[in-house]
Amino acid sequence: MRDILEKIRKFRDEREWMKFHDPKNLAVSITIEAAELLEHFQWKDEKAVDQHVRQNREEIADELADVAIYLAELADNLGIDLIQAMDRKLEKNARKYPVEKAKGVTTKYDKL
Amino acid sequence: MRDILEKIRKFRDEREWMKFHDPKNLAVSITIEAAELLEHFQWKDEKAVDQHVRQNREEIADELADVAIYLAELADNLGIDLIQAMDRKLEKNARKYPVEKAKGVTTKYDKL
Amino acid sequence: MRDILEKIRKFRDEREWMKFHDPKNLAVSITIEAAELLEHFQWKDEKAVDQHVRQNREEIADELADVAIYLAELADNLGIDLIQAMDRKLEKNARKYPVEKAKGVTTKYDKL
Amino acid sequence: MRDILEKIRKFRDEREWMKFHDPKNLAVSITIEAAELLEHFQWKDEKAVDQHVRQNREEIADELADVAIYLAELADNLGIDLIQAMDRKLEKNARKYPVEKAKGVTTKYDKL
Repeated sequence: MRDILEKIRKFRDEREWMKFHDPKNLAVSITIEAAELLEHFQWKDEKAVDQHVRQNREEIADELADVAIYLAELADNLGIDLIQAMDRKLEKNARKYPVEKAKGVTTKYDKL
Repeated sequence: MRDILEKIRKFRDEREWMKFHDPKNLAVSITIEAAELLEHFQWKDEKAVDQHVRQNREEIADELADVAIYLAELADNLGIDLIQAMDRKLEKNARKYPVEKAKGVTTKYDKL
Repeated sequence: MRDILEKIRKFRDEREWMKFHDPKNLAVSITIEAAELLEHFQWKDEKAVDQHVRQNREEIADELADVAIYLAELADNLGIDLIQAMDRKLEKNARKYPVEKAKGVTTKYDKL
Repeated sequence: MRDILEKIRKFRDEREWMKFHDPKNLAVSITIEAAELLEHFQWKDEKAVDQHVRQNREEIADELADVAIYLAELADNLGIDLIQAMDRKLEKNARKYPVEKAKGVTTKYDKL
Protein backbone atom coordinates (compact mmCIF):
# COMPACT_ATOMS: atom_id res chain seq x y z
CA MET A 1 0.00 0.00 0.00
CA ARG A 2 2.85 2.38 0.86
CA ASP A 3 4.45 1.76 -2.56
CA ILE A 4 1.14 2.35 -4.33
CA LEU A 5 0.60 5.65 -2.49
CA GLU A 6 4.08 6.73 -3.55
CA LYS A 7 3.22 5.94 -7.18
CA ILE A 8 -0.15 7.72 -6.98
CA ARG A 9 1.52 10.87 -5.62
CA LYS A 10 4.25 10.75 -8.26
CA PHE A 11 1.74 10.21 -11.08
CA ARG A 12 -0.34 13.20 -9.92
CA ASP A 13 2.54 15.55 -9.20
CA GLU A 14 4.36 14.92 -12.48
CA ARG A 15 1.16 16.08 -14.20
CA GLU A 16 0.59 18.97 -11.75
CA TRP A 17 -2.92 17.69 -11.05
CA MET A 18 -2.96 18.38 -7.30
CA LYS A 19 -4.86 21.61 -7.98
CA PHE A 20 -7.81 19.56 -9.31
CA HIS A 21 -7.63 16.90 -6.60
CA ASP A 22 -9.39 18.64 -3.73
CA PRO A 23 -11.53 16.37 -1.49
CA LYS A 24 -14.81 17.23 -3.21
CA ASN A 25 -13.50 16.53 -6.71
CA LEU A 26 -11.95 13.25 -5.56
CA ALA A 27 -15.23 12.18 -3.90
CA VAL A 28 -17.06 13.04 -7.15
CA SER A 29 -14.58 10.88 -9.08
CA ILE A 30 -14.87 7.97 -6.65
CA THR A 31 -18.65 7.99 -7.20
CA ILE A 32 -18.31 8.21 -10.99
CA GLU A 33 -15.85 5.30 -11.06
CA ALA A 34 -18.05 3.26 -8.70
CA ALA A 35 -20.94 3.74 -11.13
CA GLU A 36 -18.73 2.61 -14.02
CA LEU A 37 -17.93 -0.54 -12.08
CA LEU A 38 -21.66 -1.04 -11.40
CA GLU A 39 -22.35 -0.64 -15.13
CA HIS A 40 -20.70 -4.03 -15.67
CA PHE A 41 -23.62 -5.61 -13.81
CA GLN A 42 -26.45 -3.42 -15.15
CA TRP A 43 -29.60 -5.38 -16.13
CA LYS A 44 -27.86 -8.70 -15.48
CA ASP A 45 -29.18 -11.59 -13.41
CA GLU A 46 -26.80 -13.86 -11.49
CA LYS A 47 -26.08 -16.12 -14.46
CA ALA A 48 -25.37 -13.22 -16.80
CA VAL A 49 -23.12 -11.66 -14.15
CA ASP A 50 -21.09 -14.87 -13.84
CA GLN A 51 -20.58 -15.11 -17.58
CA HIS A 52 -19.72 -11.42 -17.88
CA VAL A 53 -17.19 -11.66 -15.05
CA ARG A 54 -15.46 -14.65 -16.66
CA GLN A 55 -15.16 -12.80 -19.98
CA ASN A 56 -14.22 -9.33 -18.67
CA ARG A 57 -11.91 -9.94 -15.73
CA GLU A 58 -9.33 -7.34 -16.77
CA GLU A 59 -11.85 -4.56 -17.47
CA ILE A 60 -13.51 -5.18 -14.10
CA ALA A 61 -10.11 -5.21 -12.34
CA ASP A 62 -9.39 -1.85 -13.99
CA GLU A 63 -12.66 -0.37 -12.71
CA LEU A 64 -11.99 -1.68 -9.20
CA ALA A 65 -8.53 -0.12 -9.43
CA ASP A 66 -9.93 3.25 -10.56
CA VAL A 67 -12.14 3.47 -7.47
CA ALA A 68 -9.30 2.26 -5.24
CA ILE A 69 -6.74 4.73 -6.63
CA TYR A 70 -8.93 7.79 -5.98
CA LEU A 71 -9.96 6.40 -2.61
CA ALA A 72 -6.36 5.85 -1.55
CA GLU A 73 -5.42 9.33 -2.75
CA LEU A 74 -8.28 11.03 -0.92
CA ALA A 75 -7.39 9.23 2.32
CA ASP A 76 -3.73 10.16 1.82
CA ASN A 77 -4.55 13.83 1.18
CA LEU A 78 -6.68 13.95 4.33
CA GLY A 79 -3.93 12.32 6.40
CA ILE A 80 -6.04 9.20 6.96
CA ASP A 81 -4.43 5.75 7.06
CA LEU A 82 -6.93 3.80 4.94
CA ILE A 83 -5.96 0.32 6.15
CA GLN A 84 -6.24 1.49 9.76
CA ALA A 85 -9.60 3.13 9.02
CA MET A 86 -10.87 -0.15 7.52
CA ASP A 87 -9.68 -2.00 10.59
CA ARG A 88 -11.45 0.36 12.96
CA LYS A 89 -14.63 0.36 10.87
CA LEU A 90 -14.74 -3.45 10.83
CA GLU A 91 -14.65 -3.36 14.63
CA LYS A 92 -17.47 -0.80 14.73
CA ASN A 93 -19.49 -2.97 12.32
CA ALA A 94 -18.92 -6.02 14.50
CA ARG A 95 -20.45 -4.16 17.45
CA LYS A 96 -23.29 -2.81 15.30
CA TYR A 97 -24.17 -6.20 13.83
CA PRO A 98 -23.65 -8.78 16.58
CA VAL A 99 -23.37 -12.31 15.15
CA GLU A 100 -26.36 -13.69 17.07
CA LYS A 101 -28.70 -11.03 15.65
CA ALA A 102 -27.28 -10.55 12.15
CA LYS A 103 -26.75 -14.20 11.22
CA GLY A 104 -28.19 -14.91 7.78
CA VAL A 105 -30.63 -12.03 7.95
CA THR A 106 -31.36 -10.29 4.65
CA THR A 107 -32.63 -7.09 6.25
CA LYS A 108 -29.27 -6.55 7.95
CA TYR A 109 -28.75 -2.96 6.93
CA ASP A 110 -32.34 -1.85 7.22
CA LYS A 111 -32.51 1.12 9.52
CA LEU A 112 -35.60 -0.05 11.40
CA MET B 1 -4.02 -5.67 3.29
CA ARG B 2 -3.81 -9.45 3.74
CA ASP B 3 -4.82 -9.10 7.40
CA ILE B 4 -7.72 -6.85 6.50
CA LEU B 5 -8.98 -9.31 3.88
CA GLU B 6 -8.84 -12.05 6.50
CA LYS B 7 -10.93 -9.91 8.87
CA ILE B 8 -13.43 -9.01 6.14
CA ARG B 9 -13.95 -12.68 5.28
CA LYS B 10 -14.31 -13.65 8.95
CA PHE B 11 -16.79 -10.82 9.62
CA ARG B 12 -18.92 -11.87 6.63
CA ASP B 13 -18.77 -15.62 7.23
CA GLU B 14 -19.60 -15.44 10.94
CA ARG B 15 -22.81 -13.66 9.89
CA GLU B 16 -23.44 -15.99 6.92
CA TRP B 17 -23.71 -13.00 4.60
CA MET B 18 -21.86 -14.52 1.64
CA LYS B 19 -25.23 -15.33 0.05
CA PHE B 20 -25.98 -11.59 -0.22
CA HIS B 21 -22.48 -10.64 -1.34
CA ASP B 22 -22.62 -11.50 -5.03
CA PRO B 23 -20.67 -9.12 -7.35
CA LYS B 24 -23.73 -7.07 -8.35
CA ASN B 25 -24.87 -6.47 -4.78
CA LEU B 26 -21.33 -5.52 -3.74
CA ALA B 27 -21.02 -3.09 -6.67
CA VAL B 28 -24.38 -1.56 -5.67
CA SER B 29 -23.10 -1.14 -2.11
CA ILE B 30 -19.79 0.40 -3.25
CA THR B 31 -21.79 3.02 -5.19
CA ILE B 32 -24.14 3.72 -2.26
CA GLU B 33 -21.21 4.14 0.14
CA ALA B 34 -19.35 6.37 -2.37
CA ALA B 35 -22.41 8.62 -2.52
CA GLU B 36 -22.52 8.76 1.30
CA LEU B 37 -18.89 9.90 1.24
CA LEU B 38 -19.76 12.49 -1.41
CA GLU B 39 -22.62 13.73 0.79
CA HIS B 40 -20.02 15.17 3.15
CA PHE B 41 -19.10 17.67 0.43
CA GLN B 42 -22.61 18.37 -0.93
CA TRP B 43 -23.28 22.08 -1.61
CA LYS B 44 -19.93 23.08 -0.09
CA ASP B 45 -17.32 25.38 -1.60
CA GLU B 46 -13.63 24.88 -0.89
CA LYS B 47 -13.64 26.83 2.36
CA ALA B 48 -16.70 25.02 3.71
CA VAL B 49 -15.12 21.67 2.71
CA ASP B 50 -11.94 22.49 4.64
CA GLN B 51 -13.87 23.38 7.77
CA HIS B 52 -16.11 20.33 7.49
CA VAL B 53 -13.10 18.02 7.03
CA ARG B 54 -11.40 19.41 10.11
CA GLN B 55 -14.52 18.88 12.23
CA ASN B 56 -15.59 15.47 10.86
CA ARG B 57 -12.38 13.54 10.27
CA GLU B 58 -13.60 10.33 11.92
CA GLU B 59 -16.95 10.26 10.09
CA ILE B 60 -15.17 10.80 6.78
CA ALA B 61 -12.60 8.11 7.58
CA ASP B 62 -15.52 5.75 8.30
CA GLU B 63 -17.11 6.49 4.93
CA LEU B 64 -13.81 5.99 3.12
CA ALA B 65 -13.47 2.68 4.98
CA ASP B 66 -16.98 1.56 4.00
CA VAL B 67 -16.18 1.98 0.31
CA ALA B 68 -12.77 0.33 0.76
CA ILE B 69 -14.14 -2.68 2.66
CA TYR B 70 -16.70 -3.58 -0.03
CA LEU B 71 -14.15 -2.87 -2.75
CA ALA B 72 -11.57 -5.15 -1.14
CA GLU B 73 -14.19 -7.87 -0.67
CA LEU B 74 -15.41 -7.69 -4.27
CA ALA B 75 -11.84 -7.92 -5.57
CA ASP B 76 -11.17 -10.84 -3.21
CA ASN B 77 -14.33 -12.69 -4.27
CA LEU B 78 -13.39 -12.28 -7.95
CA GLY B 79 -9.84 -13.53 -7.30
CA ILE B 80 -8.38 -10.12 -8.14
CA ASP B 81 -5.34 -8.79 -6.24
CA LEU B 82 -6.47 -5.19 -5.69
CA ILE B 83 -3.01 -3.73 -4.99
CA GLN B 84 -1.68 -5.39 -8.15
CA ALA B 85 -4.67 -4.12 -10.14
CA MET B 86 -3.99 -0.57 -8.89
CA ASP B 87 -0.36 -0.91 -9.90
CA ARG B 88 -1.22 -2.06 -13.40
CA LYS B 89 -3.91 0.61 -13.82
CA LEU B 90 -1.46 3.36 -12.79
CA GLU B 91 0.86 2.16 -15.54
CA LYS B 92 -1.99 2.20 -18.07
CA ASN B 93 -2.93 5.72 -16.94
CA ALA B 94 0.67 6.87 -17.33
CA ARG B 95 0.60 5.71 -20.96
CA LYS B 96 -2.85 7.26 -21.51
CA TYR B 97 -1.89 10.65 -20.04
CA PRO B 98 1.73 11.32 -21.01
CA VAL B 99 3.30 14.01 -18.79
CA GLU B 100 4.06 16.38 -21.65
CA LYS B 101 0.44 16.45 -22.81
CA ALA B 102 -1.42 16.19 -19.49
CA LYS B 103 0.62 18.66 -17.45
CA GLY B 104 -1.65 21.09 -15.63
CA VAL B 105 -4.52 20.58 -18.03
CA THR B 106 -8.01 20.73 -16.56
CA THR B 107 -9.66 18.92 -19.44
CA LYS B 108 -7.55 15.86 -18.82
CA TYR B 109 -10.34 13.31 -18.75
CA ASP B 110 -12.45 14.82 -21.47
CA LYS B 111 -13.13 12.22 -24.09
CA LEU B 112 -12.72 14.60 -27.03
CA MET C 1 -44.63 20.21 -15.03
CA ARG C 2 -44.80 23.99 -15.54
CA ASP C 3 -46.49 24.43 -12.14
CA ILE C 4 -43.88 22.25 -10.46
CA LEU C 5 -41.04 24.25 -12.00
CA GLU C 6 -42.65 27.41 -10.70
CA LYS C 7 -42.81 25.94 -7.20
CA ILE C 8 -39.19 24.70 -7.38
CA ARG C 9 -37.97 28.18 -8.34
CA LYS C 10 -40.04 29.83 -5.63
CA PHE C 11 -38.83 27.38 -2.96
CA ARG C 12 -35.19 27.99 -3.94
CA ASP C 13 -35.42 31.76 -4.31
CA GLU C 14 -37.27 32.35 -1.04
CA ARG C 15 -34.29 30.64 0.65
CA GLU C 16 -31.69 32.41 -1.52
CA TRP C 17 -30.20 29.06 -2.49
CA MET C 18 -29.50 29.84 -6.15
CA LYS C 19 -25.89 30.58 -5.26
CA PHE C 20 -25.42 26.93 -4.24
CA HIS C 21 -27.37 25.51 -7.18
CA ASP C 22 -24.77 25.68 -9.94
CA PRO C 23 -24.88 22.78 -12.45
CA LYS C 24 -22.08 20.80 -10.79
CA ASN C 25 -23.64 20.97 -7.32
CA LEU C 26 -27.03 19.98 -8.72
CA ALA C 27 -25.50 17.02 -10.59
CA VAL C 28 -23.77 15.96 -7.36
CA SER C 29 -27.11 16.13 -5.53
CA ILE C 30 -28.93 14.16 -8.24
CA THR C 31 -26.36 11.38 -7.84
CA ILE C 32 -26.58 11.41 -4.05
CA GLU C 33 -30.38 11.24 -4.14
CA ALA C 34 -30.27 8.47 -6.77
CA ALA C 35 -28.05 6.46 -4.43
CA GLU C 36 -30.50 7.03 -1.56
CA LEU C 37 -33.25 5.64 -3.77
CA LEU C 38 -31.04 2.65 -4.63
CA GLU C 39 -30.44 2.07 -0.91
CA HIS C 40 -34.04 0.93 -0.63
CA PHE C 41 -33.13 -2.10 -2.74
CA GLN C 42 -29.66 -2.80 -1.32
CA TRP C 43 -28.97 -6.51 -0.65
CA LYS C 44 -32.56 -7.45 -1.54
CA ASP C 45 -33.68 -10.17 -3.93
CA GLU C 46 -36.87 -9.80 -5.96
CA LYS C 47 -39.14 -11.10 -3.20
CA ALA C 48 -37.62 -8.84 -0.54
CA VAL C 49 -37.90 -5.88 -2.95
CA ASP C 50 -41.61 -6.55 -3.49
CA GLN C 51 -42.29 -6.69 0.23
CA HIS C 52 -40.21 -3.59 0.91
CA VAL C 53 -41.99 -1.64 -1.82
CA ARG C 54 -45.40 -2.54 -0.44
CA GLN C 55 -44.41 -1.38 3.04
CA ASN C 56 -42.48 1.78 2.11
CA ARG C 57 -44.35 3.32 -0.79
CA GLU C 58 -44.29 6.86 0.59
CA GLU C 59 -40.57 6.83 1.46
CA ILE C 60 -39.75 5.54 -2.02
CA ALA C 61 -42.02 8.16 -3.63
CA ASP C 62 -40.13 10.81 -1.64
CA GLU C 63 -36.76 9.55 -2.90
CA LEU C 64 -38.03 9.48 -6.50
CA ALA C 65 -39.26 13.05 -5.99
CA ASP C 66 -35.90 14.20 -4.60
CA VAL C 67 -34.12 13.03 -7.74
CA ALA C 68 -36.84 14.48 -9.96
CA ILE C 69 -36.84 17.88 -8.26
CA TYR C 70 -33.10 18.43 -8.69
CA LEU C 71 -33.27 17.06 -12.22
CA ALA C 72 -36.08 19.42 -13.17
CA GLU C 73 -34.23 22.33 -11.61
CA LEU C 74 -30.96 21.57 -13.40
CA ALA C 75 -32.76 21.31 -16.75
CA ASP C 76 -34.60 24.55 -16.02
CA ASN C 77 -31.40 26.38 -15.07
CA LEU C 78 -29.72 25.22 -18.28
CA GLY C 79 -32.71 26.31 -20.38
CA ILE C 80 -33.51 22.72 -21.32
CA ASP C 81 -37.13 21.55 -21.68
CA LEU C 82 -36.92 18.21 -19.86
CA ILE C 83 -40.07 16.67 -21.35
CA GLN C 84 -38.87 17.60 -24.84
CA ALA C 85 -35.41 16.19 -24.08
CA MET C 86 -37.00 12.90 -22.95
CA ASP C 87 -39.03 12.79 -26.13
CA ARG C 88 -35.99 13.34 -28.33
CA LYS C 89 -33.90 10.82 -26.37
CA LEU C 90 -36.60 8.14 -26.71
CA GLU C 91 -36.44 8.63 -30.46
CA LYS C 92 -32.64 8.31 -30.43
CA ASN C 93 -32.94 5.15 -28.32
CA ALA C 94 -35.46 3.70 -30.76
CA ARG C 95 -32.93 4.14 -33.56
CA LYS C 96 -30.09 2.76 -31.42
CA TYR C 97 -32.03 -0.31 -30.32
CA PRO C 98 -34.15 -1.42 -33.27
CA VAL C 99 -36.95 -3.73 -32.17
CA GLU C 100 -35.82 -6.67 -34.30
CA LYS C 101 -32.35 -6.70 -32.75
CA ALA C 102 -33.12 -5.68 -29.16
CA LYS C 103 -36.19 -7.84 -28.55
CA GLY C 104 -35.86 -9.71 -25.27
CA VAL C 105 -32.07 -9.49 -25.23
CA THR C 106 -30.46 -9.13 -21.83
CA THR C 107 -27.18 -7.73 -23.17
CA LYS C 108 -28.98 -4.76 -24.70
CA TYR C 109 -26.77 -2.05 -23.29
CA ASP C 110 -23.49 -3.90 -23.65
CA LYS C 111 -21.12 -1.79 -25.66
CA LEU C 112 -19.79 -4.70 -27.74
CA MET D 1 -45.85 13.75 -18.99
CA ARG D 2 -48.74 11.39 -19.80
CA ASP D 3 -47.65 11.23 -23.45
CA ILE D 4 -44.07 10.55 -22.45
CA LEU D 5 -45.11 7.72 -20.12
CA GLU D 6 -47.08 6.20 -22.98
CA LYS D 7 -43.99 6.35 -25.22
CA ILE D 8 -41.74 4.88 -22.51
CA ARG D 9 -44.09 1.94 -22.02
CA LYS D 10 -44.39 1.37 -25.76
CA PHE D 11 -40.61 1.54 -26.27
CA ARG D 12 -40.05 -1.00 -23.48
CA ASP D 13 -42.84 -3.38 -24.41
CA GLU D 14 -42.00 -3.52 -28.12
CA ARG D 15 -38.55 -4.74 -27.04
CA GLU D 16 -39.94 -7.08 -24.34
CA TRP D 17 -37.68 -5.45 -21.76
CA MET D 18 -40.17 -5.41 -18.87
CA LYS D 19 -38.54 -8.56 -17.50
CA PHE D 20 -35.31 -6.60 -16.91
CA HIS D 21 -37.05 -3.51 -15.56
CA ASP D 22 -37.74 -4.54 -11.97
CA PRO D 23 -37.44 -1.73 -9.38
CA LYS D 24 -33.89 -2.66 -8.30
CA ASN D 25 -32.54 -2.73 -11.86
CA LEU D 26 -34.21 0.58 -12.65
CA ALA D 27 -32.78 2.18 -9.50
CA VAL D 28 -29.34 0.87 -10.49
CA SER D 29 -29.76 2.43 -13.94
CA ILE D 30 -30.94 5.77 -12.52
CA THR D 31 -27.74 5.91 -10.43
CA ILE D 32 -25.51 4.96 -13.38
CA GLU D 33 -27.11 7.60 -15.60
CA ALA D 34 -26.86 10.21 -12.82
CA ALA D 35 -23.13 9.49 -12.59
CA GLU D 36 -22.80 9.88 -16.38
CA LEU D 37 -24.45 13.28 -16.07
CA LEU D 38 -22.06 14.17 -13.22
CA GLU D 39 -19.13 13.12 -15.40
CA HIS D 40 -19.77 16.21 -17.53
CA PHE D 41 -18.68 18.34 -14.56
CA GLN D 42 -15.84 16.13 -13.26
CA TRP D 43 -12.69 18.08 -12.27
CA LYS D 44 -14.18 21.34 -13.56
CA ASP D 45 -14.36 24.66 -11.74
CA GLU D 46 -17.23 27.09 -12.34
CA LYS D 47 -15.65 28.70 -15.39
CA ALA D 48 -14.84 25.37 -17.03
CA VAL D 49 -18.39 24.16 -16.28
CA ASP D 50 -19.88 27.22 -18.00
CA GLN D 51 -17.78 26.70 -21.11
CA HIS D 52 -18.48 22.97 -21.20
CA VAL D 53 -22.23 23.55 -20.84
CA ARG D 54 -22.25 26.03 -23.72
CA GLN D 55 -20.43 23.59 -25.99
CA ASN D 56 -22.25 20.38 -25.01
CA ARG D 57 -25.86 21.36 -24.48
CA GLU D 58 -27.30 18.43 -26.45
CA GLU D 59 -25.14 15.78 -24.77
CA ILE D 60 -26.09 17.12 -21.34
CA ALA D 61 -29.79 17.26 -22.31
CA ASP D 62 -29.48 13.60 -23.35
CA GLU D 63 -27.98 12.62 -19.99
CA LEU D 64 -30.71 14.53 -18.12
CA ALA D 65 -33.26 12.70 -20.26
CA ASP D 66 -31.71 9.28 -19.53
CA VAL D 67 -32.11 9.82 -15.79
CA ALA D 68 -35.62 11.22 -16.25
CA ILE D 69 -36.79 8.35 -18.47
CA TYR D 70 -35.81 5.62 -15.99
CA LEU D 71 -37.15 7.71 -13.11
CA ALA D 72 -40.51 8.19 -14.83
CA GLU D 73 -40.68 4.48 -15.66
CA LEU D 74 -39.87 3.37 -12.11
CA ALA D 75 -42.53 5.69 -10.70
CA ASP D 76 -45.02 4.42 -13.30
CA ASN D 77 -44.23 0.75 -12.52
CA LEU D 78 -44.75 1.39 -8.81
CA GLY D 79 -48.05 3.18 -9.43
CA ILE D 80 -46.62 6.48 -8.21
CA ASP D 81 -47.62 9.77 -9.85
CA LEU D 82 -44.21 11.45 -10.11
CA ILE D 83 -45.49 15.03 -10.52
CA GLN D 84 -47.74 14.58 -7.49
CA ALA D 85 -44.85 13.08 -5.51
CA MET D 86 -42.69 16.10 -6.39
CA ASP D 87 -45.45 18.42 -5.27
CA ARG D 88 -45.85 16.68 -1.94
CA LYS D 89 -42.09 16.50 -1.38
CA LEU D 90 -41.72 20.23 -2.04
CA GLU D 91 -44.29 20.86 0.68
CA LYS D 92 -42.42 18.58 3.08
CA ASN D 93 -39.17 20.39 2.26
CA ALA D 94 -40.81 23.75 2.90
CA ARG D 95 -41.75 22.58 6.38
CA LYS D 96 -38.28 21.06 6.96
CA TYR D 97 -36.41 24.18 5.84
CA PRO D 98 -38.44 27.20 7.01
CA VAL D 99 -37.45 30.36 5.12
CA GLU D 100 -36.37 32.28 8.21
CA LYS D 101 -33.87 29.57 9.24
CA ALA D 102 -32.67 28.35 5.84
CA LYS D 103 -32.18 31.70 4.11
CA GLY D 104 -28.78 31.86 2.43
CA VAL D 105 -27.27 29.20 4.67
CA THR D 106 -24.73 26.90 3.06
CA THR D 107 -25.06 24.18 5.67
CA LYS D 108 -28.70 23.75 4.83
CA TYR D 109 -28.70 19.97 4.42
CA ASP D 110 -26.28 19.19 7.21
CA LYS D 111 -27.89 16.74 9.53
CA LEU D 112 -26.64 18.40 12.70
